[in-house]
Amino acid sequence: MGHTFPGATVPFGMVQLSPDTDTIPYAVDGKYNPDVYKYCAGYQYEDPTIVGFSHTHFSGTGHSDLGDILIAPTSGKIQLNPGTAPHPETGFRSKYSHSTEMASPNYYRVTLEDHNIMAELTTTTRVGIHKYTYSEQDSANIILDLVSGIYNYDGKNVNTYVRIVDSVTIIGYRQTNGWARNRTVYFAIKFSEPIRNYGYNDFQNNKVYRGFWRKFNLKENFPEMSASQLRAYFQFDLPENNELMMKVALSSVSMEGALNNMDYEASGWNFDKYLRDGRAQWDRELLKYKIQSSNEDILKTFYTAVYHTCLGPTVYQDISGKYRGLDLEIHESFDGSTNYTTFSLWDTYRALHPLFNLTQHDRNRDMIISMLNHQEQSAEHMLPIWSHHANENWCMIGYHAVSVIADAYAKGIDGIDYKKALNACVTTARTRYFEGLGDYMNLGYVPEDKSGSSVSKTLEYAYDDWCIAQLALKLGETAIYKEFSERALSYKNVYDKSTGFMRAKTSKGEFIKEFDPLSTHQAGYIEGNAWNYSLYVPHHIDSLVKLMGGQKKFAQHLDSLFTMQLADKYFEHTEDITREGIMGSYVHGNEPSHHVIYMFNKVGRPDLTQKYIRQVLNTKYLAKNDGLSGNDDCGQMSAWYIFSALGFYPVCPGSDTYSIGSPLIENATIQLASGANLLINVKNQGEKNCYVKSVTFNGKKIKNWEISHSEIIKGGILEFVMSSKPIR
Amino acid sequence: MGHTFPGATVPFGMVQLSPDTDTIPYAVDGKYNPDVYKYCAGYQYEDPTIVGFSHTHFSGTGHSDLGDILIAPTSGKIQLNPGTAPHPETGFRSKYSHSTEMASPNYYRVTLEDHNIMAELTTTTRVGIHKYTYSEQDSANIILDLVSGIYNYDGKNVNTYVRIVDSVTIIGYRQTNGWARNRTVYFAIKFSEPIRNYGYNDFQNNKVYRGFWRKFNLKENFPEMSASQLRAYFQFDLPENNELMMKVALSSVSMEGALNNMDYEASGWNFDKYLRDGRAQWDRELLKYKIQSSNEDILKTFYTAVYHTCLGPTVYQDISGKYRGLDLEIHESFDGSTNYTTFSLWDTYRALHPLFNLTQHDRNRDMIISMLNHQEQSAEHMLPIWSHHANENWCMIGYHAVSVIADAYAKGIDGIDYKKALNACVTTARTRYFEGLGDYMNLGYVPEDKSGSSVSKTLEYAYDDWCIAQLALKLGETAIYKEFSERALSYKNVYDKSTGFMRAKTSKGEFIKEFDPLSTHQAGYIEGNAWNYSLYVPHHIDSLVKLMGGQKKFAQHLDSLFTMQLADKYFEHTEDITREGIMGSYVHGNEPSHHVIYMFNKVGRPDLTQKYIRQVLNTKYLAKNDGLSGNDDCGQMSAWYIFSALGFYPVCPGSDTYSIGSPLIENATIQLASGANLLINVKNQGEKNCYVKSVTFNGKKIKNWEISHSEIIKGGILEFVMSSKPIR
Repeated sequence: MGHTFPGATVPFGMVQLSPDTDTIPYAVDGKYNPDVYKYCAGYQYEDPTIVGFSHTHFSGTGHSDLGDILIAPTSGKIQLNPGTAPHPETGFRSKYSHSTEMASPNYYRVTLEDHNIMAELTTTTRVGIHKYTYSEQDSANIILDLVSGIYNYDGKNVNTYVRIVDSVTIIGYRQTNGWARNRTVYFAIKFSEPIRNYGYNDFQNNKVYRGFWRKFNLKENFPEMSASQLRAYFQFDLPENNELMMKVALSSVSMEGALNNMDYEASGWNFDKYLRDGRAQWDRELLKYKIQSSNEDILKTFYTAVYHTCLGPTVYQDISGKYRGLDLEIHESFDGSTNYTTFSLWDTYRALHPLFNLTQHDRNRDMIISMLNHQEQSAEHMLPIWSHHANENWCMIGYHAVSVIADAYAKGIDGIDYKKALNACVTTARTRYFEGLGDYMNLGYVPEDKSGSSVSKTLEYAYDDWCIAQLALKLGETAIYKEFSERALSYKNVYDKSTGFMRAKTSKGEFIKEFDPLSTHQAGYIEGNAWNYSLYVPHHIDSLVKLMGGQKKFAQHLDSLFTMQLADKYFEHTEDITREGIMGSYVHGNEPSHHVIYMFNKVGRPDLTQKYIRQVLNTKYLAKNDGLSGNDDCGQMSAWYIFSALGFYPVCPGSDTYSIGSPLIENATIQLASGANLLINVKNQGEKNCYVKSVTFNGKKIKNWEISHSEIIKGGILEFVMSSKPIR
Repeated sequence: MGHTFPGATVPFGMVQLSPDTDTIPYAVDGKYNPDVYKYCAGYQYEDPTIVGFSHTHFSGTGHSDLGDILIAPTSGKIQLNPGTAPHPETGFRSKYSHSTEMASPNYYRVTLEDHNIMAELTTTTRVGIHKYTYSEQDSANIILDLVSGIYNYDGKNVNTYVRIVDSVTIIGYRQTNGWARNRTVYFAIKFSEPIRNYGYNDFQNNKVYRGFWRKFNLKENFPEMSASQLRAYFQFDLPENNELMMKVALSSVSMEGALNNMDYEASGWNFDKYLRDGRAQWDRELLKYKIQSSNEDILKTFYTAVYHTCLGPTVYQDISGKYRGLDLEIHESFDGSTNYTTFSLWDTYRALHPLFNLTQHDRNRDMIISMLNHQEQSAEHMLPIWSHHANENWCMIGYHAVSVIADAYAKGIDGIDYKKALNACVTTARTRYFEGLGDYMNLGYVPEDKSGSSVSKTLEYAYDDWCIAQLALKLGETAIYKEFSERALSYKNVYDKSTGFMRAKTSKGEFIKEFDPLSTHQAGYIEGNAWNYSLYVPHHIDSLVKLMGGQKKFAQHLDSLFTMQLADKYFEHTEDITREGIMGSYVHGNEPSHHVIYMFNKVGRPDLTQKYIRQVLNTKYLAKNDGLSGNDDCGQMSAWYIFSALGFYPVCPGSDTYSIGSPLIENATIQLASGANLLINVKNQGEKNCYVKSVTFNGKKIKNWEISHSEIIKGGILEFVMSSKPIR
């Protein structure tokens, strides 16, 4: 359910080297195939076969792409067809068993049973390192599959290329369209043993006109091949230990760039050294959090969450400093910053980037610089919405990069030209042809007849506009502050007093007729129903409470979200959530509600915040395979867990305020980006003691269940005293 | 017939901006469409309609590609379909009349009658300049067609991209496979007036998955578009003079590279200046030859030939020095040399490159450096065979780059690392998997059962090997000299004494059974029959003569080639030649016989050389539209004409010897690359006076009808005295 991958990677690494158990087509005959949904990260635990190991994976997305440069070691007869799951006999795919599988930071191991090969994987930032131990010396093959990919379909590959440079070196690329319209992954491969023999699939009917190539025997030992659907095999004589190693470097720039990346990061053949170096990187990340809990599952879940928050955004730049920009040109960082990709911003602005502001100051700065470069390189002159691999895929709604920027400013991230950043935010937010934005600017709301999911858009634009206003205010840009402060009130324009919910309007100003606040297919909303989305005014919670009838009524209303009994019909045809992930009508697997539980603090019911937070922490994140109640959404779900388990949460990024919840751990030392440590002591912790009796920071009582980032970042002791009884 | 294009270009220019009258598909349902053959250069004089003006064209090829970035100005309603020839009403194509057409160096003009637009074209090296004069001010459209191309077919476009940078600037690219498997043409466009409105064709069914783009109105005013089949329109309000100018810069490197090229070469809007500058370049080229003849047709034909010899190879490099190499990586020239492309070497090694050694020393050096870079960048480590736009298309046979290199060395072209060049030649000639070369090395001939056109290959390899041997000898590489001198004798291994012809053998050493020396479809030969190909031993003519029965017999045999009567059956299904282009069985339109007439000199019949040379000059090159008797073959046909019209010809490139023929002109001053002038005086010239009574160089009688390059290049006076009677 979490759509995470089990393979090897270093923190924020460009290479994510992981097994793909199936990669069924995204679409069949042009029609979306719903079965593909579970393969967002290429791997499903219940699958009995592995196709091979590919080098790029998203962690926790709800749509997909990537799965590039799939390597499959095989023995015996060459088979250039991956075969049909779950039948390994139909191709080079192999059965495997979880008992031979081992996945730990920067290491993955499995035995491919049909070929009797033990596969071990590790990585550097830009290079995947494979070690294959065969059972026979004279029957070792490597399949290089450039067709395979995640969310693949006929015609996704635009072009692929392979060139044999010498007896141990291959370069090439895979060029695709799809979620990313114009994406090229360049690669360079080196083998530890010389290639004895090589060849390609039959590409006679491969949609690529072959010119005058008929003059060669193209199927064997011909040093270059180009086609839309290309698979190659390589045969080896093994040394006495039956081991074959290979290194696969990636680049967004060129094949030469990939070779350079390999030269720099992985010039030798010491598998254990690469593994160790990557482990050391993981240690540095994981040990930023020193957690104590008597419940081992909590430790497991917590560190798993930390791991998941270091899987993206990922480095997207060659060691030379060059990278491919959104304009498809080659750019170079001269300021020493690192270019990042995979911005799932609708998810990650909520807690992941705020978490980075606590513990990954430098990376978050570079990520924001990457976003500003994206904006400069954008044909639409817009900040990223959902972008990966030098492409904007426009997934989801809003323009939440502005939240990340405003939050960074609010939290003192330096090294960013914020005047320029504000300009990028304003330009983005004034892009009239983007998703009803022109109408929103004219009418104060997005009309449903002009642009779907209009309520969700109106609410999120309003929040984003508040972020822009805050940034403008602090930068002294009064006119911008005024304009966007006004826009930030737009949520009021879709509030329907008669139902008490935010409700879609037409461009004539009328609420649309049919309305079911619990339906997840109700027009006006995306990844959430009216019930949940109506609570999405993180920047003006007090006003929202007033709008909805005052504190008491609001508290009751909010509580009913968790206590209501829902009919089964509301669970039909929903992606990204499980029945188990739902409490009443609260859906933790989807992001729009991530701040909701903390709203009880604002209406005099901190006890309910504490109760439900604890409930989510204990039931929606489990220390087992497939333990997440929804996609990890590029680290957002995990970042929510980390914050909430520590006892506070950034309800409204762009402000520097955290809301206090109910800590799950007993004791924590957090190594902050500032260099200081944040100590969290939880007294009288216990399974039933979910209620906070008192909370102090550096001995001072915390008021209104809020603490500011500027306090925390200097370090100190946050002390909770817990109780089994609610204290209101 | 000549497959030349009438459009605008500067000498050796990267842009060839020319009208395409039709671009019918290369293949229909995967099957070759023979009708496409005549559209190698995009234009046919008899066609009544013009589709538009595209920026890349071969001159005189027998297969094709290119036709990139087609621009069609239209008026009135937007029509994004080119339409079907000859019906302009079916699309944006337009009727035109030759009376409004004007084509002169670096200038082309025509009126598009259906749109009432006068189109004028000129160029700089890397930029096409368009001036369109509309008849109405408010109805001016430009169609940018990235689908259109020469030798196009469904699936040839891999990807195309357009980005609107600002109201006057567009960038993008067209990526194709085809004759070139991996080719990308980047472009940048600037308009003289701001775009009022723009949009694209419907690409719903355009084989490119559109991701989340459905959130925009993609058909109008959306600033970027990517699809395999893309056409865009742009609408303008015109100034009072009704003129719209546009500039289209190309690059092989990037869109940014194209913009830079435009900035450097064509930053302003003075059409006449660009025209004048290009004209000046043409004047410099054309006036290297100062020719006198009382026959105006001879002057026209001669200067047309000179023009054609300056259309290729073409510059393939950005103004920055960067270019895309054969390895698809970006390279940069640091030695000040210019990178060239379009090497139709099977054709051009014969006379075009030798002509360059007379008058284009620097360019030929850079072309050879380009070839050596190609070899370094080649996956096969081979010198170019037939290459264009960073791709090897492997067209035709042999490895004649070695001849170009050997000829350059023999003729003193400096600035080339000849040791490295020899190494490149040897590596190329030892590529065992190339076209029967392994068998050739083992058996001394290419066996027909292993590799078709085996006789042609054996003969051409033998000649090429002689070239390598000569280069090795001069460089003191004795072992290489020996190896290749031996290989140079391989022609003897396919000589069939019983028929007196070179004849295909099987790998068992037996001549193949069925044999018709006049058939152009006889196994063993390509673009020529056994009769013609058996004379292809340019490096050992004396030995060949001996092999074929001695001088007298050989002379008769040779003469019968021109006098025989041929049955019609021999003209069925032949490309690249016309019945009119044939004398007896001598086919001037195909290259393998280009040296043949000069062989009479070697067997005591210079009178026949003179007679037939004059006959070819007068009948196979005519001063009219479609005046060539075969494809110009990238300048080879024209180079033959120039040499022969001046009275000498390089029968065996790689030696420094020219063979004397029968000059056509009366007087010539040739500005040699050495700086010296070669004066040619022809006394007693006349239509019937085709025989040479005497010939002297600087007053010294020429012996054996041969003169060396080393003599000529120093300058001097070559004087012919002509006669109407043969002198033997």
